[in-house]
Amino acid sequence: MSEENSNAGSDNDAGSEGINERHRARMQRKKEVVDQKIEAAKRDAGVLLVNTGNGKGKSSSAFGMAIRALGHGMKVGVVQFIKGAKSTGEELFLQRFPDEVSFHAMGEGYTWETQSRERDIAAAERAWEKARSFLADPAIGFVVLDELNIALKYKYLDVNRVIADLQSRPAMQHVVVTGRAAPPELIEVADTVTEMQLVKHAFKAGIAAQPGVEW
Amino acid sequence: MSEENSNAGSDNDAGSEGINERHRARMQRKKEVVDQKIEAAKRDAGVLLVNTGNGKGKSSSAFGMAIRALGHGMKVGVVQFIKGAKSTGEELFLQRFPDEVSFHAMGEGYTWETQSRERDIAAAERAWEKARSFLADPAIGFVVLDELNIALKYKYLDVNRVIADLQSRPAMQHVVVTGRAAPPELIEVADTVTEMQLVKHAFKAGIAAQPGVEW
Repeated sequence: MSEENSNAGSDNDAGSEGINERHRARMQRKKEVVDQKIEAAKRDAGVLLVNTGNGKGKSSSAFGMAIRALGHGMKVGVVQFIKGAKSTGEELFLQRFPDEVSFHAMGEGYTWETQSRERDIAAAERAWEKARSFLADPAIGFVVLDELNIALKYKYLDVNRVIADLQSRPAMQHVVVTGRAAPPELIEVADTVTEMQLVKHAFKAGIAAQPGVEW
Repeated sequence: MSEENSNAGSDNDAGSEGINERHRARMQRKKEVVDQKIEAAKRDAGVLLVNTGNGKGKSSSAFGMAIRALGHGMKVGVVQFIKGAKSTGEELFLQRFPDEVSFHAMGEGYTWETQSRERDIAAAERAWEKARSFLADPAIGFVVLDELNIALKYKYLDVNRVIADLQSRPAMQHVVVTGRAAPPELIEVADTVTEMQLVKHAFKAGIAAQPGVEW
């Protein structure tokens, strides 16, 4: 469409009326499509989301949704699996709100730092017990299970047990699970699944992990 | 690897020693690789991030990074392009912190709601003026330009002008640009680019956009 090739300046030239009319007609059609989709999606329900893939944004998206939930007056529960040896920006910030956010970091660092499978399994089990307490509490509207996929990938937790606990949660509770390599069984039962695909990353260009961006 | 096919239970069986040793050796190799990469990425710099694609998580990831930045004591500037007719959870929450977060929602709703190209261009220009004030302020460590890609896609703003303003920002300021269909010129100059790929979405299964998840 010529509109796509125009620029802001072209609105002052002779073609601008045609451009504007085509734009209006196109937006009218788009509005009809969007309104129909909104009409079709009426049911309210707790949503199970999975953020996976090798790209950036899996955990940060979960924490962005958490502040949306806080903005709407919900209580939030967070469990960070695998990560946790170092305090992250999200932890430092969310711990300002102890009445609204329950934050539990597993506190064992990355699995390749501990290099002990038994220690990792024990830490994952403790973290899952915390997660289960959130998944059993209807007062918590939004639950973040950050990097749970990593604990599942290494079989530190049994995926069927995890799915059973997720599916028995309160009907209106939202849960987001993050981490690379989400197991197919989890993707199957999830409502919304996004694969964060790496296009490029500053780290590869020699820029260190920046506070506020990566942690 | 057999470890991948084992489960937590198998740690009690006869093979568990072998499993644990293979795990330790594998994690040792992984630690060496990770440590080398960290050693190679030493430079500190403001990062320009782009979150694009048709999947969920573009804007929520930007707001998750914003709270990381707040957790590290940075000031945050937010401009929401296109969106803004309805108060979102992120706006309701972040406006609690007027000393730390400057939040500007364009306030014209979606472009297919206004159906006026002139009105959209005028609103985008006003929003970009606000964005430029953040991009000129070294006291602001993290800037969110939410849905800017949509304003660029419709040519409401000139991509070269936008890139010039982004590139003249303070050296340590981080900026994240979100929205579908990021222009190639912007992807070219960005440091970190993620494509959020839709695997599945609750909306298609008839679940309405839930507060705390979608807005």
